[in-house]
Amino acid sequence: MTDQRIEGELPVTDAASAAADVPADATMLVSGFGSVGYPKAVPLALAESDRDLSLTVVSGGSVGEEIDVALVEADAIARRYPYQARSPARAAANDGRMAFADRHISTLGDDVQFGGLVDPDVAVVEAVAVGEDWLIPSGSVGHTPAYVERADELIVEVNHAQPRSLAEFHDIYRPALPPDREPVPLSTPDERIGGPRIEFDADALAAVVETDRRDEPYEFREPTETDRAIAGNLRSFLTDEVERSPLFADSVRVQFGVGSLGNALMGALADADFGDRDLIYFGEVIQDGLLDLLDSGRLEAASATSLALSAEGQDRLFADAERYAEDVVLRPADVSNRPALIDRVGVVAVNSALEVDLYGHANSTHVDGSRVLNGIGGSADFTRNAALSIIALPSTVGDGDRSRIVPMVPHVDHTEHDVDAVVTEHGVADLRGTAPRERARLLVDRCARPDYRERLRAYLDRALDSGGHEPHDLDAALSWHE
Amino acid sequence: MTDQRIEGELPVTDAASAAADVPADATMLVSGFGSVGYPKAVPLALAESDRDLSLTVVSGGSVGEEIDVALVEADAIARRYPYQARSPARAAANDGRMAFADRHISTLGDDVQFGGLVDPDVAVVEAVAVGEDWLIPSGSVGHTPAYVERADELIVEVNHAQPRSLAEFHDIYRPALPPDREPVPLSTPDERIGGPRIEFDADALAAVVETDRRDEPYEFREPTETDRAIAGNLRSFLTDEVERSPLFADSVRVQFGVGSLGNALMGALADADFGDRDLIYFGEVIQDGLLDLLDSGRLEAASATSLALSAEGQDRLFADAERYAEDVVLRPADVSNRPALIDRVGVVAVNSALEVDLYGHANSTHVDGSRVLNGIGGSADFTRNAALSIIALPSTVGDGDRSRIVPMVPHVDHTEHDVDAVVTEHGVADLRGTAPRERARLLVDRCARPDYRERLRAYLDRALDSGGHEPHDLDAALSWHE
Repeated sequence: MTDQRIEGELPVTDAASAAADVPADATMLVSGFGSVGYPKAVPLALAESDRDLSLTVVSGGSVGEEIDVALVEADAIARRYPYQARSPARAAANDGRMAFADRHISTLGDDVQFGGLVDPDVAVVEAVAVGEDWLIPSGSVGHTPAYVERADELIVEVNHAQPRSLAEFHDIYRPALPPDREPVPLSTPDERIGGPRIEFDADALAAVVETDRRDEPYEFREPTETDRAIAGNLRSFLTDEVERSPLFADSVRVQFGVGSLGNALMGALADADFGDRDLIYFGEVIQDGLLDLLDSGRLEAASATSLALSAEGQDRLFADAERYAEDVVLRPADVSNRPALIDRVGVVAVNSALEVDLYGHANSTHVDGSRVLNGIGGSADFTRNAALSIIALPSTVGDGDRSRIVPMVPHVDHTEHDVDAVVTEHGVADLRGTAPRERARLLVDRCARPDYRERLRAYLDRALDSGGHEPHDLDAALSWHE
Repeated sequence: MTDQRIEGELPVTDAASAAADVPADATMLVSGFGSVGYPKAVPLALAESDRDLSLTVVSGGSVGEEIDVALVEADAIARRYPYQARSPARAAANDGRMAFADRHISTLGDDVQFGGLVDPDVAVVEAVAVGEDWLIPSGSVGHTPAYVERADELIVEVNHAQPRSLAEFHDIYRPALPPDREPVPLSTPDERIGGPRIEFDADALAAVVETDRRDEPYEFREPTETDRAIAGNLRSFLTDEVERSPLFADSVRVQFGVGSLGNALMGALADADFGDRDLIYFGEVIQDGLLDLLDSGRLEAASATSLALSAEGQDRLFADAERYAEDVVLRPADVSNRPALIDRVGVVAVNSALEVDLYGHANSTHVDGSRVLNGIGGSADFTRNAALSIIALPSTVGDGDRSRIVPMVPHVDHTEHDVDAVVTEHGVADLRGTAPRERARLLVDRCARPDYRERLRAYLDRALDSGGHEPHDLDAALSWHE
């Protein structure tokens, strides 16, 4: 494969010049998902300019410090969707300095295209190659196809530090607008239905900027004893379920949430005994744990929208991209996270949460109900539409300082109607078909840390005095968070 | 059309004999949705028997008093899914005498078929006709196809009081189990992709019982002044949106929640000015308001799973079934409510709620967080997957006794991530793209009843003292519900 990155007579310029043409109050759509594949040079140039900026920045998912640190610290972002995972952005959202709204990943492309959310001015996207009317994204696809289609102007950052061979992973498909929206023609999770290129209107291409700045890689902590105990409980629950359910006669399709726990749980599948069933990943991000499963032959195929790897994982993948690309497909986020496909594939979804309450409602986003952490991301896309939805989390914060099984969550991201089972290091609560009072007993007995069980039972007993289908003592319901 | 109802040599018997063969602790799947098309004679015979029953009863949606009054009062139901709308069932759920769990309508067929929810013994379904290995449902389809497929034994109630011509409305399609689940091959909301018959294994047919008991019809109250003001605000919001969005270039697809307010809102579309765009209903139930729209030629077509009509509406429809069936299709509930189809059709979803909080979370099910009303039904299927999701509700309970815009809802059925706009008789809050603090201001200024606005602002100011992305004062957050 050639390493030519720029094909044709294109408006190549430097980052500062490209940035200077972005209006001070622009709505800027940026590539990036799982902290990879986002533009770096133009956001940095914007941050370093002395202009008084008031940008609306819409990314696919999480992006790196060039945007959520540098631009935020320059006080240049007035409004931000749909996810952030860096302290300065988080602080700005919590202070109210930055109007942040988190959104479901699956519908963000639609939200932008339907026009109810924003009126986009410019898309700034990272690519490994660009031509007059096409580009090839780098380490993530995210919502770049929708953004490129919708923005009036397009700035492409061609990143020479990203291997050209990332093109091998991409499968670009665009759903049409309703009511003429056809079903996505994907019949197996690893099928390819498009090509590596995102096409655009040649007139929209305002600038091409060359860079060679790498994504800041993920750092996964070593699995803790708690991680390993959660993984063990999850493995044992899944093994029984796979044996029992007609859904898993031939294969098991899984999704795991992003992060160190998710990565550790992926690794835990290595020694799961699913008989001769194929294991397939249909999720949002490829993390190191999946590379291990691919290398060992345990994992048949993986579909996602982002390669969110550690530095070592990036090296492994980049060194052998063509081989990995035989089994790994990166799709637009409105394909990877699409409710219809999660349903058709019949996914087992494993996501974490900050806390779960006695009736199975989960809080993934707001500490004590007020302070946002990152955003809901794709967790509800999968939890809501999976064939089996599991919330996996440690029973406490830190070393037992605070229970993650609480009387009432002060913020709900996943309702009781969507959570099938909860797994902690102490056990599994299978909530399917249970009435709320039964759920409470199961969560206390199986999932709570033993030294919190008495307090939880005391709350429940008091709540039962006033009765009700989902008994609460509203006086005390949030007292664990005050 | 012949009025022959029973074709072939079938095990016809009386209700008492059929009921006697239902095990005392059976898991019984029953037809019925929108309080029509449910079995009547066998449940009544069970209720009148002197056996000590401990049944698990799974319906499609709401059913009539023969089940949720008579059987509940006989203390015969130990466990009940997924929805109930009668006082005795509600009381039993709230007392904890009946283990009730409400479930999303769209996935209930799957929940039963995948086997994680229940292990079904017998299906008891109402039909207008039955043969050796097929039946034709009556006024609703609901989850009858899934239930009939899954139950070991089948009892069919042939109801002579239901017109045989109801067959004209039905379009039965069964999705396969994942991972071999194909997209539902529906390209327009009114297309027909199946036939009127539900097929079953002839060996499963245990009994056929003849009845002539009508469904208890809906009673809609006359629209109040508040209903009309909500309808006016909704109409004006929709008219602008239809003009603005590329989604509605040729047609407007709508869904309305069940009930008197929903019915009044449907009627309000009669004088909406959508230019020459077609109006199409893609929802869950057909109510009287839709018949008016069909009769006036304003509505092109309607797709649903149940004919939830008043007595007068039933008379109108039954008198002219063949004509209405040209434009009205009844589908299985896992087609009518399917996320994939709601997305592809690009539905405007209008549902009500008990209350909405400052950040756009809605409570549809639990009064004061504890006492269940009916259940979530299909409201989240539509709210979550619609192209535009609207919660329409009066600003207060009764004549201003209590605000329905509250600081924090004590139960969340629809999260901030899923609600696009809120409409009350005072105005419309368009929440798309707003940060939580902006949402709070909009909801107070546009939707709350004026004499509650000061108290809401006072709460918000206090909450802002402690900061946060979604500021709350946890001490006072639930005080409006205590």
